[in-house]
Amino acid sequence: MADEPTYDLVVIGGGPAGYAGAIRAGQLGKKVACVEMERAGGTCLNWGCIPSKALLKSAELYRTMLHAEDFGFKVGGIEVDFAKVVERSRGVANQMAKGIEFLFRKNKVEYIRGKAQINVPGLVEITDGEDKGKILSTKNVLVATGCRARMLPGLKADGKRVMTAREILDRRDLPKSCIVLGAGAIGMEFAYFMNSFGCEVTIVEMLPNVLPVEDDEVSKFVERDFKKQGVTIHTDTKAENIAVTDDGVTLDAVKGDKITPLKAESLLVAIGVQANMDGLLSKKVKLEMDRKYIKVDRHYNTSVKGIYAAGDIIGPPWLAHVATYEAVQAVNGMFGHGEPRPMERFPGCTYCQPQVASIGMTERDVKEKGIKYKIGKFPFTASGKAVAAAESDGFVKLIVAEEDGEILGAHITGHEATELIAEYALGMELEATWEEIHGTIHAHPTLSEALMEAAAATHGEAIHI
Amino acid sequence: MADEPTYDLVVIGGGPAGYAGAIRAGQLGKKVACVEMERAGGTCLNWGCIPSKALLKSAELYRTMLHAEDFGFKVGGIEVDFAKVVERSRGVANQMAKGIEFLFRKNKVEYIRGKAQINVPGLVEITDGEDKGKILSTKNVLVATGCRARMLPGLKADGKRVMTAREILDRRDLPKSCIVLGAGAIGMEFAYFMNSFGCEVTIVEMLPNVLPVEDDEVSKFVERDFKKQGVTIHTDTKAENIAVTDDGVTLDAVKGDKITPLKAESLLVAIGVQANMDGLLSKKVKLEMDRKYIKVDRHYNTSVKGIYAAGDIIGPPWLAHVATYEAVQAVNGMFGHGEPRPMERFPGCTYCQPQVASIGMTERDVKEKGIKYKIGKFPFTASGKAVAAAESDGFVKLIVAEEDGEILGAHITGHEATELIAEYALGMELEATWEEIHGTIHAHPTLSEALMEAAAATHGEAIHI
Repeated sequence: MADEPTYDLVVIGGGPAGYAGAIRAGQLGKKVACVEMERAGGTCLNWGCIPSKALLKSAELYRTMLHAEDFGFKVGGIEVDFAKVVERSRGVANQMAKGIEFLFRKNKVEYIRGKAQINVPGLVEITDGEDKGKILSTKNVLVATGCRARMLPGLKADGKRVMTAREILDRRDLPKSCIVLGAGAIGMEFAYFMNSFGCEVTIVEMLPNVLPVEDDEVSKFVERDFKKQGVTIHTDTKAENIAVTDDGVTLDAVKGDKITPLKAESLLVAIGVQANMDGLLSKKVKLEMDRKYIKVDRHYNTSVKGIYAAGDIIGPPWLAHVATYEAVQAVNGMFGHGEPRPMERFPGCTYCQPQVASIGMTERDVKEKGIKYKIGKFPFTASGKAVAAAESDGFVKLIVAEEDGEILGAHITGHEATELIAEYALGMELEATWEEIHGTIHAHPTLSEALMEAAAATHGEAIHI
Repeated sequence: MADEPTYDLVVIGGGPAGYAGAIRAGQLGKKVACVEMERAGGTCLNWGCIPSKALLKSAELYRTMLHAEDFGFKVGGIEVDFAKVVERSRGVANQMAKGIEFLFRKNKVEYIRGKAQINVPGLVEITDGEDKGKILSTKNVLVATGCRARMLPGLKADGKRVMTAREILDRRDLPKSCIVLGAGAIGMEFAYFMNSFGCEVTIVEMLPNVLPVEDDEVSKFVERDFKKQGVTIHTDTKAENIAVTDDGVTLDAVKGDKITPLKAESLLVAIGVQANMDGLLSKKVKLEMDRKYIKVDRHYNTSVKGIYAAGDIIGPPWLAHVATYEAVQAVNGMFGHGEPRPMERFPGCTYCQPQVASIGMTERDVKEKGIKYKIGKFPFTASGKAVAAAESDGFVKLIVAEEDGEILGAHITGHEATELIAEYALGMELEATWEEIHGTIHAHPTLSEALMEAAAATHGEAIHI
């Protein structure tokens, strides 16, 4: 007779999918372990979303202080202690990681330090790290190993001349100049950050727009704004002949026939991610894959019974909040706490200034699908709160179905866009129409009124434009 | 045969109810005039919500700059040009008022300057001001004259020793000390503002809590925070024997048997509002009243056919956003554009720091009604975004019905609370349950996640606490 497995669940990976899944299992009274090879919280909390927001806060404050006179202040001179800016962000990450470790204890999640390998279904071996050699027998495994920054072939992140987000987050000095490869959320956030403190930033993006997944109007708006801020932007441009020299990096920015040689002290590679699959599976375990990601069904089952996967490792959109959602759903499902729901829609956020947030389809998407639609736009220049706070850059753009008035997509750029999007996200979840958003009393004066006005504007009923 | 009236609608009052109602009528293609005795935008835009938010922005920035070191900056010394702080806020009000005047032109609203009197139903006479003597014949009248700050009997606002919100907004110097009578939203906002710049502030509130309409826990939290900021607060206390002297104001703060004599350079009276009815009706027009406010039915009809009323003049809650909503509904109804909806619920906001925002019932209300409920609380100290932005004071408190999980009330205190409340407001409008809020993917990292977590916490499913 085989022994009863020690664990109900072993989670591999301690990031937003892994720690959330483990905590949820703990809440359900299950015996659960979470294996993490670095620090609880994973990349997001330690080397991504969280510390970068601390850096961006300093950048925003610095920019505001530079024109403190507008607000009635004479400031005697501002000295930037760049190392301290970075130290603060490390401190924030450390504090939040400790928070996750506390939550593990509170929810009786066993925290195992090391690299995990699924030996056979039901057996997880710790192959490296503090707890190397441990073998965990478990009824279920949740793979939540996530992704890491993708590097270009032939390049190596040295943290000085070549960096990914990970290296830049730990760098205590600001390069004088930096080429940012890739104008997705991460590239744009660091471009904004470095430029704020005086680094000469050049962005090179292969696609026609910065923030290529966003609505074209939003991308164009942010591109114009970044250029005004002094960032050089090459879109529709490939980086070729990248060479690391003693004092920096050179490359050719190739746009059609035109080649522009670029040179900078540093290169930030922000071209996407790759799956963390290395050493995860022994030769005895084969999981069906979808390109380089683990394939799962609507209930987060992999092709092998008892092995589930959630988060970045199952493929795009590679977002922390989606990862958390999936892992919690997977765990609820595996322990019979309701039917696990697939992810249907998600907000996407970029935290540079102007901020960008969106959910659902872009106007491009809607046109491609041939859906009849109406657009409502409201500029923050018409918002009393935005003008009072001197934060009136940007707009709200709402796309609704002509037929039934349902929200198809929502796009916000401007101050606090990343907070404001939550209302539209709930609206879409509840299948709200433009009339329901318009008919909801919004507090005055707030930026959120712009969401109501954009809804009204889809049918010519906005009061303030 | 009587002449056809010149106007479809004459709106009396150009504030959030009046201007919105007039613009809406213009959108519907009606011939409409809006009579305003001061400036388009009314009290809210010119002497209330909008300029106060500009002042608060300066106060927040000043406080943040005072500990800029935490963010990695050495600031050489900050000089406050208080007059300029106030000038900026006047500029913002002026800009927004111009905006309303532009919207009047765009929507073909005739803008009439002066004081209006309803002579008989269908006839409005301008009795004072620029357009004095004009008589407007109209099918409909919408009364939106609003309210003004209430003064204590025997006191007169001189703008120096005795002020209401109106006077303080136009004052170019900061008193060294100020007693604030009334700890409602207006009293608390100005207390925060003056204290930020070094004025010694003492608040006297008759009721047991500051922000008496808010949930007790929120009021207690803000009271503690204000005390930490250096504001003196007397609750459960009456102000008696108020005397204006040559160099200030004295009064007795009476709490039960205890009398504390108080003295300050200025007194801010923030004890509520009174209806603007003076000269509004000729002797030939009698409107049924509800205490001192105009009584209306669910469709905003007064007791006289053809005369409607909306906004502060029909009584509490005296909020700009409610006023706008009511006026738009009244106008839609009078011109057959759908059934006008009565106001069912509304968010309330206070913009001091920590901000306060709420909608629906407090825990006190729910208990009094004997409804079975569950509470979900989430502190911003557990929010990665809040910690990264160094804005982790405060919490979200959600009250849901035990029976069906519907939201009964939502209370937020902390950074951007006034923006965050919009999501819960939409949720209540759509009769969302805690599960629907919890099941909506919220972007990470944002403060809005705290709203999702508070929903989850009502049933022990929050991940991050």
